[in-house]
Amino acid sequence: MRAAARRIDGLVLRTPVLEISPGLWFKLELLQHTGSFKVRGAFNRILSAGELPPGGVIAASGGNHGLAVAYAARELGVRAEIFVPEVTSPVKVAGLGALGAHITQTGAVYSDAAEAAAKRAAETGALMVHAYDQPEVVAGQGTTGLELMEQTGGVDTVLVAVGGGGFAAGITLGVAGPGVVASGAVGSGTVTPGASRPRIVAVEPERIPTLNAALRAGRPVPVEVGGVAADSLGATQIGATAFEILSGPGVESVLVADEAIVTARRTLWARHRLAAEPGGAAAYAALLSGAYTPAPGERVAVVVCGSNTDPATLATG
Amino acid sequence: MRAAARRIDGLVLRTPVLEISPGLWFKLELLQHTGSFKVRGAFNRILSAGELPPGGVIAASGGNHGLAVAYAARELGVRAEIFVPEVTSPVKVAGLGALGAHITQTGAVYSDAAEAAAKRAAETGALMVHAYDQPEVVAGQGTTGLELMEQTGGVDTVLVAVGGGGFAAGITLGVAGPGVVASGAVGSGTVTPGASRPRIVAVEPERIPTLNAALRAGRPVPVEVGGVAADSLGATQIGATAFEILSGPGVESVLVADEAIVTARRTLWARHRLAAEPGGAAAYAALLSGAYTPAPGERVAVVVCGSNTDPATLATG
Ligand SMILES: Cc1ncc(COP(=O)(O)O)c(C=O)c1O
Ligand SMILES: Cc1ncc(COP(=O)(O)O)c(C=O)c1O
Repeated sequence: MRAAARRIDGLVLRTPVLEISPGLWFKLELLQHTGSFKVRGAFNRILSAGELPPGGVIAASGGNHGLAVAYAARELGVRAEIFVPEVTSPVKVAGLGALGAHITQTGAVYSDAAEAAAKRAAETGALMVHAYDQPEVVAGQGTTGLELMEQTGGVDTVLVAVGGGGFAAGITLGVAGPGVVASGAVGSGTVTPGASRPRIVAVEPERIPTLNAALRAGRPVPVEVGGVAADSLGATQIGATAFEILSGPGVESVLVADEAIVTARRTLWARHRLAAEPGGAAAYAALLSGAYTPAPGERVAVVVCGSNTDPATLATG
Repeated sequence: MRAAARRIDGLVLRTPVLEISPGLWFKLELLQHTGSFKVRGAFNRILSAGELPPGGVIAASGGNHGLAVAYAARELGVRAEIFVPEVTSPVKVAGLGALGAHITQTGAVYSDAAEAAAKRAAETGALMVHAYDQPEVVAGQGTTGLELMEQTGGVDTVLVAVGGGGFAAGITLGVAGPGVVASGAVGSGTVTPGASRPRIVAVEPERIPTLNAALRAGRPVPVEVGGVAADSLGATQIGATAFEILSGPGVESVLVADEAIVTARRTLWARHRLAAEPGGAAAYAALLSGAYTPAPGERVAVVVCGSNTDPATLATG
């Protein structure tokens, strides 16, 4: 994780935290380059690969990962091919084009685009940058957690959205860093004595419960994908790496209704002037709707993680 | 200034800074309660007044100051009467209503509303909270500068928008605090040796040059008010307190065209996912348009200071 942080230092933004009330922080990862944390994993994966194949890099994505790979490729002077499904919003497709990536829009949801990308990668030999299920991607996303602990001085709980689970898994590792053990155990009476790191609340839409279903089944299983956050949290199945990490102790799986996500997104705009996409507001929805209720004095961080949205819908959508 | 900071601590947000490239910071004051820095001055003025008259507080405003006074009054359990001119945007009038203030919309521009408010205050005995020309208001706004220096570790230059000048004047005082002398003088070769505080670049729209005209005339003079930022920077004349401070050494007056403001606002959204109103984007416009060009290595902070805007116009307006 520290190695990933060093590798991507200067290429990604150290996004700020905002303490909106005593002991409640937003980590403003929606202000990251390309509007989401995904550049962290993309840079870390590409820079870990050593010399790149002539085919450059390739990725499949609901949109944000594609934007991130296209951005990283442009910054590093590498060719990028991005596969997106039909569900990807026009805002994201337009953004991809502006970054100079070669775009193919195919299939109904992310997993269809992923299949097409894998086939194409086999033909061209391009480096696959997976949206969530590669260790370098998980480590890159996890640098968000490292920063968060440094910036807040330590929290008891982190709420984070889950699609394929790379982000939440990375953060679970990132907040458990050596510098963190002490601060995580001090302060709020809500921390189990001896607990050495913050609790992770892994938040999913009811209509895309990849982690929740996997925890019930005891292994990753495919789920149906639908609802307002499908274009960012719409993985069909939790990643294998992510499942290993998120099925461990200290991680709580929480589901939120689409209406709660819509309300959270509206509140982020009306009260905090943050322009979040639905997936970027899901973690906050868990807090606002009461799906997760902190104990008195519990220090909580909410990762607000995506802003690739049509701003015209912020007040109404 | 330190007294003001203590007085309003916990009532206003310590807004974060975002380093968007090495040595270039945004101070995200647009994420402040009510979407602008104005709550800082409003709380400081009201809390400095001791016991309040039965008439409560009264203010005239292009919109943001009114929102701030209404918010502060609600938080402190005080009655608020707000006078706004016709130029005030519907977003702001709606926000005032939601905060429970008594609203009177009258006159073409801010100065008309201010006259009506002064007359009413004389009748009711309510405490006038001026939008910029009171020492407590200037001191409150200036806490933004204190924070900025602490958060960045010191900068060479601060770009800030000017309407009546209370914000820029406060920041000029705030960044000159004792903790700042050392860090302001260290580092970039662009700082005059021995300089004890950052340069202030006071940015105004060409169509509302209150400070620029006053500097030319040698005293505050009325100007015509127009253009895209009229509902936030639309004071008719620079405040007397502000002129004292901003006509001193270390302050540079810079004008920007309306088109530069529109471009800056669009760029803040497209590249940084910040939803700024025109007045909130004016300081950045000076940098982006080259109206102010930093020397190599100069450490620059841009205050992004207002977000009371219709988000539907972010990509198009
Ligand atoms: C805004 C946003 N939040 C959360 C996620 C979920 O990340 P992961 O798939 O690593 O769980 C994504 C994935 O695209 C995203 O775009
Ligand atoms: C967003 C914004 N920026 C800047 C200003 C200018 O502040 P001042 O009038 O203190 O110069 C205002 C004043 O309303 C404002 O609303």
